[in-house]
Amino acid sequence: MLTLYHAPNTRSSRIITQLIALGKLDQVDIRLTDIPRQDGRGGHDPQNPHPEGKVPLLVTESGEEIRESTAIMLYLSEIFPSALAPAAGESGRGAFLSWMSWYGNVMEPVYLHHVAGVSHPVLTATFRQWPEAVAYLAAGLTGRDYLLGDRYSLADLLISSPFLILPDAVPEVPEIQAWVARCAARPEVAATLAYDARASAELGLTAA
Amino acid sequence: MLTLYHAPNTRSSRIITQLIALGKLDQVDIRLTDIPRQDGRGGHDPQNPHPEGKVPLLVTESGEEIRESTAIMLYLSEIFPSALAPAAGESGRGAFLSWMSWYGNVMEPVYLHHVAGVSHPVLTATFRQWPEAVAYLAAGLTGRDYLLGDRYSLADLLISSPFLILPDAVPEVPEIQAWVARCAARPEVAATLAYDARASAELGLTAA
Ligand SMILES: N[C@@H](CCC(=O)N[C@@H](CS)C(=O)NCC(=O)O)C(=O)O
Ligand SMILES: N[C@@H](CCC(=O)N[C@@H](CS)C(=O)NCC(=O)O)C(=O)O
Repeated sequence: MLTLYHAPNTRSSRIITQLIALGKLDQVDIRLTDIPRQDGRGGHDPQNPHPEGKVPLLVTESGEEIRESTAIMLYLSEIFPSALAPAAGESGRGAFLSWMSWYGNVMEPVYLHHVAGVSHPVLTATFRQWPEAVAYLAAGLTGRDYLLGDRYSLADLLISSPFLILPDAVPEVPEIQAWVARCAARPEVAATLAYDARASAELGLTAA
Repeated sequence: MLTLYHAPNTRSSRIITQLIALGKLDQVDIRLTDIPRQDGRGGHDPQNPHPEGKVPLLVTESGEEIRESTAIMLYLSEIFPSALAPAAGESGRGAFLSWMSWYGNVMEPVYLHHVAGVSHPVLTATFRQWPEAVAYLAAGLTGRDYLLGDRYSLADLLISSPFLILPDAVPEVPEIQAWVARCAARPEVAATLAYDARASAELGLTAA
Protein backbone atom coordinates (compact mmCIF):
# COMPACT_ATOMS: atom_id res chain seq x y z
CA MET A 1 0.00 0.00 0.00
CA LEU A 2 1.09 3.60 -0.51
CA THR A 3 1.97 5.45 2.70
CA LEU A 4 1.55 9.21 3.12
CA TYR A 5 3.08 11.16 6.00
CA HIS A 6 0.61 13.96 6.64
CA ALA A 7 0.33 16.77 9.19
CA PRO A 8 -3.07 18.50 9.26
CA ASN A 9 -3.32 22.04 7.86
CA THR A 10 0.08 22.01 6.16
CA ARG A 11 1.47 21.54 2.68
CA SER A 12 0.57 17.86 2.89
CA SER A 13 -3.12 18.79 3.10
CA ARG A 14 -3.14 19.34 -0.66
CA ILE A 15 -2.25 15.67 -1.12
CA ILE A 16 -5.29 14.82 1.01
CA THR A 17 -7.35 17.12 -1.24
CA GLN A 18 -6.04 15.31 -4.32
CA LEU A 19 -6.84 11.88 -2.84
CA ILE A 20 -10.35 13.00 -1.84
CA ALA A 21 -10.94 14.44 -5.34
CA LEU A 22 -9.81 11.11 -6.80
CA GLY A 23 -11.92 9.09 -4.36
CA LYS A 24 -8.73 7.23 -3.35
CA LEU A 25 -8.22 8.22 0.28
CA ASP A 26 -8.92 4.63 1.35
CA GLN A 27 -6.13 3.33 -0.89
CA VAL A 28 -3.40 5.16 0.98
CA ASP A 29 -2.18 4.51 4.51
CA ILE A 30 -2.23 8.03 5.99
CA ARG A 31 0.21 8.42 8.88
CA LEU A 32 -0.68 11.43 10.98
CA THR A 33 2.61 13.17 11.65
CA ASP A 34 3.70 15.85 14.05
CA ILE A 35 5.87 18.76 12.86
CA PRO A 36 7.14 21.89 14.63
CA ARG A 37 4.47 24.59 14.11
CA GLN A 38 5.13 28.31 13.74
CA ASP A 39 3.28 29.01 16.98
CA GLY A 40 5.71 26.78 18.87
CA ARG A 41 3.36 23.80 19.22
CA GLY A 42 4.24 20.40 17.83
CA GLY A 43 7.62 18.83 17.31
CA HIS A 44 9.58 16.50 15.11
CA ASP A 45 8.01 13.07 14.74
CA PRO A 46 10.72 10.38 14.94
CA GLN A 47 8.46 8.02 12.92
CA ASN A 48 8.64 10.34 9.91
CA PRO A 49 11.31 9.04 7.49
CA HIS A 50 11.64 12.40 5.64
CA PRO A 51 15.32 13.37 5.99
CA GLU A 52 14.36 16.86 7.16
CA GLY A 53 11.32 15.79 9.17
CA LYS A 54 8.95 17.41 6.70
CA VAL A 55 5.58 16.56 5.24
CA PRO A 56 4.40 15.49 2.75
CA LEU A 57 6.35 12.31 2.15
CA LEU A 58 4.94 9.46 0.11
CA VAL A 59 6.40 5.97 0.31
CA THR A 60 5.54 3.72 -2.63
CA GLU A 61 4.63 0.04 -2.41
CA SER A 62 8.21 -0.86 -3.33
CA GLY A 63 9.62 1.53 -0.70
CA GLU A 64 10.65 4.49 -2.87
CA GLU A 65 10.45 7.73 -0.89
CA ILE A 66 8.95 10.67 -2.74
CA ARG A 67 9.39 14.14 -1.25
CA GLU A 68 8.07 17.44 -2.66
CA SER A 69 4.37 18.06 -3.20
CA THR A 70 4.82 18.41 -6.95
CA ALA A 71 6.48 15.02 -7.30
CA ILE A 72 3.90 13.33 -5.07
CA MET A 73 0.99 14.87 -7.00
CA LEU A 74 2.50 13.83 -10.35
CA TYR A 75 3.15 10.30 -9.07
CA LEU A 76 -0.39 9.90 -7.70
CA SER A 77 -1.82 11.28 -10.96
CA GLU A 78 -0.05 8.44 -12.77
CA ILE A 79 -1.15 5.73 -10.34
CA PHE A 80 -4.72 7.05 -10.35
CA PRO A 81 -5.41 8.57 -13.80
CA SER A 82 -8.31 11.04 -13.85
CA ALA A 83 -9.63 14.18 -15.48
CA LEU A 84 -7.64 16.18 -12.91
CA ALA A 85 -4.44 15.86 -14.95
CA PRO A 86 -3.78 15.43 -18.67
CA ALA A 87 -1.82 12.19 -19.07
CA ALA A 88 1.38 11.93 -21.12
CA GLY A 89 0.52 12.45 -24.79
CA GLU A 90 -2.76 14.24 -24.07
CA SER A 91 -3.56 17.83 -25.00
CA GLY A 92 -2.64 20.16 -22.15
CA ARG A 93 0.19 17.94 -20.87
CA GLY A 94 2.89 20.51 -21.65
CA ALA A 95 1.03 23.37 -19.99
CA PHE A 96 0.24 21.14 -17.02
CA LEU A 97 3.89 20.18 -16.42
CA SER A 98 4.91 23.82 -16.86
CA TRP A 99 2.49 25.10 -14.20
CA MET A 100 3.32 22.28 -11.79
CA SER A 101 7.05 23.06 -12.06
CA TRP A 102 6.55 26.81 -11.95
CA TYR A 103 4.83 26.50 -8.57
CA GLY A 104 7.83 25.04 -6.75
CA ASN A 105 10.59 26.56 -8.89
CA VAL A 106 9.32 30.14 -8.92
CA MET A 107 6.09 30.93 -7.12
CA GLU A 108 7.01 29.46 -3.74
CA PRO A 109 10.52 30.98 -3.59
CA VAL A 110 9.42 34.44 -4.69
CA TYR A 111 6.45 34.44 -2.35
CA LEU A 112 8.73 33.56 0.56
CA HIS A 113 11.33 36.14 -0.47
CA HIS A 114 8.48 38.66 -0.49
CA VAL A 115 7.23 37.61 2.97
CA ALA A 116 10.77 37.59 4.38
CA GLY A 117 11.50 40.99 2.82
CA VAL A 118 14.62 39.53 1.27
CA SER A 119 15.93 40.87 -2.01
CA HIS A 120 19.24 40.30 -3.77
CA PRO A 121 20.35 40.68 -7.41
CA VAL A 122 21.31 36.98 -7.57
CA LEU A 123 17.80 35.98 -6.52
CA THR A 124 16.06 38.45 -8.81
CA ALA A 125 18.14 37.31 -11.78
CA THR A 126 16.89 33.74 -11.41
CA PHE A 127 13.47 34.01 -9.81
CA ARG A 128 12.34 37.59 -10.47
CA GLN A 129 9.99 38.83 -7.73
CA TRP A 130 6.42 38.55 -6.47
CA PRO A 131 4.97 41.13 -8.93
CA GLU A 132 6.30 39.14 -11.91
CA ALA A 133 4.88 35.92 -10.49
CA VAL A 134 1.51 37.57 -9.96
CA ALA A 135 1.58 38.96 -13.51
CA TYR A 136 2.39 35.49 -14.87
CA LEU A 137 -0.46 33.90 -12.95
CA ALA A 138 -2.89 36.66 -14.00
CA ALA A 139 -1.90 36.22 -17.66
CA GLY A 140 -2.47 32.49 -17.35
CA LEU A 141 -5.99 33.08 -16.05
CA THR A 142 -7.02 35.77 -18.51
CA GLY A 143 -9.92 34.54 -20.64
CA ARG A 144 -10.20 31.19 -18.92
CA ASP A 145 -11.66 29.78 -15.73
CA TYR A 146 -8.74 27.51 -14.85
CA LEU A 147 -5.05 27.36 -15.68
CA LEU A 148 -5.54 24.70 -18.35
CA GLY A 149 -8.75 26.19 -19.72
CA ASP A 150 -12.30 25.11 -18.84
CA ARG A 151 -11.41 22.32 -16.51
CA TYR A 152 -10.05 22.33 -12.97
CA SER A 153 -6.79 20.43 -12.67
CA LEU A 154 -4.09 19.58 -10.16
CA ALA A 155 -2.28 22.73 -11.30
CA ASP A 156 -5.17 24.79 -9.91
CA LEU A 157 -5.22 22.69 -6.74
CA LEU A 158 -1.49 23.19 -6.13
CA ILE A 159 -1.13 26.83 -7.14
CA SER A 160 -4.27 28.03 -5.35
CA SER A 161 -3.39 26.15 -2.15
CA PRO A 162 -1.35 28.90 -0.43
CA PHE A 163 -4.11 31.43 -1.12
CA LEU A 164 -6.74 29.23 0.53
CA ILE A 165 -4.90 29.32 3.84
CA LEU A 166 -3.48 32.85 3.49
CA PRO A 167 -6.35 34.97 2.13
CA ASP A 168 -4.31 38.15 2.69
CA ALA A 169 -1.81 36.87 0.14
CA VAL A 170 -4.35 36.86 -2.69
CA PRO A 171 -3.26 39.57 -5.14
CA GLU A 172 -5.79 42.29 -5.87
CA VAL A 173 -6.25 41.13 -9.43
CA PRO A 174 -9.87 40.30 -10.37
CA GLU A 175 -8.96 37.24 -12.50
CA ILE A 176 -6.94 35.78 -9.64
CA GLN A 177 -9.51 36.61 -6.97
CA ALA A 178 -12.30 34.98 -8.99
CA TRP A 179 -10.18 31.90 -9.66
CA VAL A 180 -9.23 31.53 -5.98
CA ALA A 181 -12.95 31.68 -5.14
CA ARG A 182 -13.68 28.95 -7.72
CA CYS A 183 -10.87 26.77 -6.34
CA ALA A 184 -11.98 27.36 -2.73
CA ALA A 185 -15.53 26.25 -3.60
CA ARG A 186 -14.43 22.76 -4.69
CA PRO A 187 -16.11 20.10 -2.53
CA GLU A 188 -12.80 18.32 -1.84
CA VAL A 189 -11.47 21.52 -0.24
CA ALA A 190 -14.30 21.52 2.32
CA ALA A 191 -13.82 17.79 2.81
CA THR A 192 -10.10 18.36 3.50
CA LEU A 193 -10.89 20.95 6.17
CA ALA A 194 -13.20 18.46 7.88
CA TYR A 195 -10.60 15.70 7.55
CA ASP A 196 -7.89 17.91 9.02
CA ALA A 197 -10.12 19.03 11.92
CA ARG A 198 -10.53 15.37 12.92
CA ALA A 199 -6.82 14.71 12.37
CA SER A 200 -5.85 17.70 14.54
CA ALA A 201 -8.06 16.47 17.34
CA GLU A 202 -6.50 13.02 17.05
CA LEU A 203 -3.02 14.54 17.31
CA GLY A 204 -4.12 16.71 20.25
CA LEU A 205 -3.46 19.86 18.19
CA THR A 206 -6.91 21.43 18.44
CA ALA A 207 -6.62 24.98 19.75
CA ALA A 208 -7.79 25.31 23.35
CA MET B 1 7.79 20.43 -34.80
CA LEU B 2 8.91 21.18 -31.26
CA THR B 3 10.68 24.52 -30.81
CA LEU B 4 13.33 25.14 -28.15
CA TYR B 5 14.56 28.62 -27.24
CA HIS B 6 18.18 28.09 -26.27
CA ALA B 7 21.05 30.37 -25.25
CA PRO B 8 24.48 28.71 -25.29
CA ASN B 9 26.14 27.94 -21.94
CA THR B 10 23.04 28.55 -19.83
CA ARG B 11 20.37 26.50 -18.11
CA SER B 12 18.95 25.62 -21.52
CA SER B 13 22.17 23.77 -22.37
CA ARG B 14 20.98 20.84 -20.29
CA ILE B 15 18.03 20.47 -22.66
CA ILE B 16 20.54 20.28 -25.52
CA THR B 17 22.41 17.61 -23.52
CA GLN B 18 19.19 15.65 -23.09
CA LEU B 19 18.36 15.89 -26.81
CA ILE B 20 21.89 14.81 -27.79
CA ALA B 21 21.70 11.87 -25.35
CA LEU B 22 18.38 10.89 -26.91
CA GLY B 23 19.69 11.32 -30.46
CA LYS B 24 16.78 13.71 -31.10
CA LEU B 25 18.47 17.06 -31.67
CA ASP B 26 17.31 16.99 -35.30
CA GLN B 27 13.68 16.63 -34.24
CA VAL B 28 13.58 19.99 -32.48
CA ASP B 29 13.78 23.44 -34.04
CA ILE B 30 16.48 25.09 -31.89
CA ARG B 31 16.16 28.87 -31.86
CA LEU B 32 19.40 30.46 -30.73
CA THR B 33 18.36 33.16 -28.29
CA ASP B 34 20.12 36.11 -26.75
CA ILE B 35 19.80 36.81 -23.02
CA PRO B 36 21.44 39.42 -20.77
CA ARG B 37 24.67 37.84 -19.46
CA GLN B 38 26.21 38.46 -16.05
CA ASP B 39 29.24 40.09 -17.65
CA GLY B 40 27.02 42.69 -19.29
CA ARG B 41 27.07 41.19 -22.78
CA GLY B 42 23.92 40.09 -24.55
CA GLY B 43 20.42 41.43 -24.18
CA HIS B 44 16.79 40.46 -24.29
CA ASP B 45 15.75 38.77 -27.53
CA PRO B 46 12.36 40.11 -28.67
CA GLN B 47 11.75 36.85 -30.59
CA ASN B 48 11.75 34.88 -27.33
CA PRO B 49 8.13 34.31 -26.22
CA HIS B 50 9.10 33.49 -22.60
CA PRO B 51 7.20 36.06 -20.48
CA GLU B 52 10.38 36.94 -18.58
CA GLY B 53 12.72 36.62 -21.56
CA LYS B 54 14.33 33.50 -20.14
CA VAL B 55 15.61 30.24 -21.53
CA PRO B 56 14.82 27.41 -21.78
CA LEU B 57 11.35 27.60 -23.27
CA LEU B 58 9.85 24.73 -25.25
CA VAL B 59 6.87 25.25 -27.53
CA THR B 60 4.98 22.08 -28.39
CA GLU B 61 3.57 21.21 -31.82
CA SER B 62 0.15 22.43 -30.68
CA GLY B 63 1.59 25.70 -29.35
CA GLU B 64 1.72 24.97 -25.62
CA GLU B 65 4.55 26.89 -23.97
CA ILE B 66 6.58 24.96 -21.40
CA ARG B 67 8.88 26.91 -19.10
CA GLU B 68 11.16 25.48 -16.38
CA SER B 69 13.91 22.99 -17.14
CA THR B 70 12.25 20.30 -15.03
CA ALA B 71 8.97 20.50 -16.93
CA ILE B 72 10.73 20.55 -20.31
CA MET B 73 12.87 17.54 -19.40
CA LEU B 74 9.84 15.58 -18.16
CA TYR B 75 7.86 16.47 -21.28
CA LEU B 76 10.68 15.46 -23.64
CA SER B 77 11.15 12.22 -21.69
CA GLU B 78 7.52 11.39 -22.45
CA ILE B 79 7.71 12.31 -26.15
CA PHE B 80 10.99 10.41 -26.54
CA PRO B 81 10.95 7.47 -24.08
CA SER B 82 14.40 6.11 -23.27
CA ALA B 83 16.49 4.47 -20.58
CA LEU B 84 17.30 7.98 -19.29
CA ALA B 85 14.03 8.15 -17.34
CA PRO B 86 11.81 5.49 -15.79
CA ALA B 87 8.37 5.84 -17.40
CA ALA B 88 5.14 6.02 -15.41
CA GLY B 89 4.55 2.68 -13.74
CA GLU B 90 8.18 1.58 -13.96
CA SER B 91 10.45 0.88 -11.01
CA GLY B 92 12.32 4.03 -10.01
CA ARG B 93 9.57 6.40 -11.20
CA GLY B 94 8.86 7.70 -7.70
CA ALA B 95 12.50 8.36 -6.89
CA PHE B 96 12.96 9.96 -10.30
CA LEU B 97 10.09 12.43 -9.85
CA SER B 98 11.30 13.17 -6.33
CA TRP B 99 14.83 14.10 -7.45
CA MET B 100 13.60 16.11 -10.43
CA SER B 101 11.31 18.17 -8.18
CA TRP B 102 13.88 18.50 -5.42
CA TYR B 103 16.29 20.16 -7.84
CA GLY B 104 14.07 23.16 -8.58
CA ASN B 105 12.14 23.26 -5.31
CA VAL B 106 15.10 23.01 -2.96
CA MET B 107 18.57 22.70 -4.42
CA GLU B 108 18.45 25.72 -6.70
CA PRO B 109 16.91 28.11 -4.13
CA VAL B 110 19.25 27.07 -1.31
CA TYR B 111 22.30 27.24 -3.55
CA LEU B 112 21.36 30.76 -4.60
CA HIS B 113 20.61 31.81 -1.01
CA HIS B 114 24.07 30.50 -0.15
CA VAL B 115 25.76 32.40 -3.01
CA ALA B 116 23.83 35.58 -2.22
CA GLY B 117 24.66 35.25 1.48
CA VAL B 118 20.97 35.59 2.27
CA SER B 119 19.49 33.93 5.33
CA HIS B 120 16.10 34.35 6.99
CA PRO B 121 14.06 32.11 9.33
CA VAL B 122 11.18 32.03 6.82
CA LEU B 123 13.49 30.69 4.13
CA THR B 124 15.23 28.20 6.41
CA ALA B 125 11.88 26.86 7.63
CA THR B 126 10.84 25.92 4.11
CA PHE B 127 14.07 25.27 2.22
CA ARG B 128 16.66 24.58 4.92
CA GLN B 129 20.17 25.60 3.76
CA TRP B 130 23.02 24.48 1.53
CA PRO B 131 24.54 22.04 4.08
CA GLU B 132 21.23 20.15 4.35
CA ALA B 133 20.94 20.01 0.55
CA VAL B 134 24.50 18.71 0.27
CA ALA B 135 23.80 16.10 2.96
CA TYR B 136 20.66 14.99 1.12
CA LEU B 137 22.53 14.63 -2.16
CA ALA B 138 25.41 12.79 -0.47
CA ALA B 139 22.98 10.37 1.18
CA GLY B 140 21.33 9.75 -2.18
CA LEU B 141 24.69 8.82 -3.70
CA THR B 142 25.96 6.64 -0.90
CA GLY B 143 26.43 3.09 -2.11
CA ARG B 144 25.37 3.82 -5.68
CA ASP B 145 26.89 5.32 -8.81
CA TYR B 146 23.88 7.39 -9.82
CA LEU B 147 20.84 8.86 -8.07
CA LEU B 148 18.56 6.04 -9.23
CA GLY B 149 21.13 3.29 -8.74
CA ASP B 150 23.34 1.77 -11.43
CA ARG B 151 22.07 3.75 -14.33
CA TYR B 152 22.55 7.40 -15.33
CA SER B 153 19.27 9.27 -15.65
CA LEU B 154 17.90 12.72 -16.33
CA ALA B 155 18.00 13.30 -12.57
CA ASP B 156 21.80 13.04 -12.70
CA LEU B 157 21.91 15.25 -15.79
CA LEU B 158 19.80 17.97 -14.14
CA ILE B 159 21.27 17.89 -10.64
CA SER B 160 24.90 17.67 -11.75
CA SER B 161 24.49 20.47 -14.28
CA PRO B 162 25.35 23.43 -12.01
CA PHE B 163 28.48 21.62 -10.80
CA LEU B 164 29.74 21.11 -14.35
CA ILE B 165 29.83 24.84 -14.99
CA LEU B 166 30.74 25.89 -11.42
CA PRO B 167 33.45 23.44 -10.30
CA ASP B 168 34.07 25.53 -7.18
CA ALA B 169 30.53 24.76 -6.05
CA VAL B 170 31.17 21.00 -5.87
CA PRO B 171 30.98 20.06 -2.18
CA GLU B 172 34.04 18.40 -0.70
CA VAL B 173 32.24 15.11 -0.26
CA PRO B 174 33.92 12.15 -1.98
CA GLU B 175 30.64 10.55 -3.13
CA ILE B 176 29.53 13.80 -4.74
CA GLN B 177 32.92 14.55 -6.28
CA ALA B 178 33.11 11.08 -7.84
CA TRP B 179 29.55 11.33 -9.15
CA VAL B 180 30.18 14.78 -10.69
CA ALA B 181 33.22 13.32 -12.44
CA ARG B 182 31.10 10.43 -13.79
CA CYS B 183 28.43 12.85 -15.01
CA ALA B 184 31.02 15.18 -16.57
CA ALA B 185 32.51 12.27 -18.51
CA ARG B 186 29.28 11.54 -20.39
CA PRO B 187 29.77 11.90 -24.15
CA GLU B 188 26.70 14.13 -24.51
CA VAL B 189 28.29 16.63 -22.13
CA ALA B 190 31.32 17.05 -24.40
CA ALA B 191 29.00 17.19 -27.41
CA THR B 192 27.00 19.97 -25.73
CA LEU B 193 30.15 22.03 -25.15
CA ALA B 194 31.02 21.69 -28.84
CA TYR B 195 27.45 22.55 -29.84
CA ASP B 196 27.44 25.62 -27.61
CA ALA B 197 30.83 26.81 -28.89
CA ARG B 198 29.41 26.85 -32.43
CA ALA B 199 26.19 28.48 -31.19
CA SER B 200 28.13 31.19 -29.35
CA ALA B 201 30.11 31.98 -32.48
CA GLU B 202 26.89 32.16 -34.47
CA LEU B 203 25.43 34.61 -31.96
CA GLY B 204 28.65 36.63 -31.94
CA LEU B 205 29.17 35.80 -28.27
CA THR B 206 32.62 34.22 -28.50
CA ALA B 207 35.00 35.87 -26.08
CA ALA B 208 37.51 38.13 -27.80
N1 LIG C 1 8.70 21.99 -0.91
C1 LIG C 1 8.10 21.10 0.06
C2 LIG C 1 7.89 21.83 1.38
C3 LIG C 1 7.50 20.93 2.52
C4 LIG C 1 7.39 21.68 3.84
O1 LIG C 1 8.15 22.63 4.07
N2 LIG C 1 6.43 21.25 4.71
C5 LIG C 1 6.25 21.88 6.00
C6 LIG C 1 4.78 21.88 6.38
S1 LIG C 1 3.89 23.15 5.54
C7 LIG C 1 6.96 21.07 7.08
O2 LIG C 1 6.98 19.84 7.04
N3 LIG C 1 7.54 21.76 8.07
C8 LIG C 1 8.19 21.13 9.18
C9 LIG C 1 9.67 21.35 9.15
O3 LIG C 1 10.17 22.01 8.20
O4 LIG C 1 10.34 20.86 10.07
C10 LIG C 1 6.80 20.54 -0.49
O5 LIG C 1 6.05 21.28 -1.14
O6 LIG C 1 6.54 19.36 -0.30
N1 LIG D 1 14.06 27.91 -13.25
C1 LIG D 1 14.36 28.23 -14.62
C2 LIG D 1 15.48 29.24 -14.69
C3 LIG D 1 15.69 29.78 -16.08
C4 LIG D 1 16.75 30.90 -16.10
O1 LIG D 1 16.85 31.67 -15.13
N2 LIG D 1 17.52 30.99 -17.20
C5 LIG D 1 18.53 32.01 -17.35
C6 LIG D 1 19.75 31.46 -18.11
S1 LIG D 1 20.77 30.42 -17.11
C7 LIG D 1 18.01 33.16 -18.17
O2 LIG D 1 17.28 32.96 -19.13
N3 LIG D 1 18.40 34.39 -17.81
C8 LIG D 1 18.04 35.57 -18.55
C9 LIG D 1 17.12 36.45 -17.76
O3 LIG D 1 16.75 36.08 -16.61
O4 LIG D 1 16.74 37.49 -18.28
C10 LIG D 1 14.73 26.95 -15.35
O5 LIG D 1 15.43 26.09 -14.80
O6 LIG D 1 14.30 26.78 -16.50
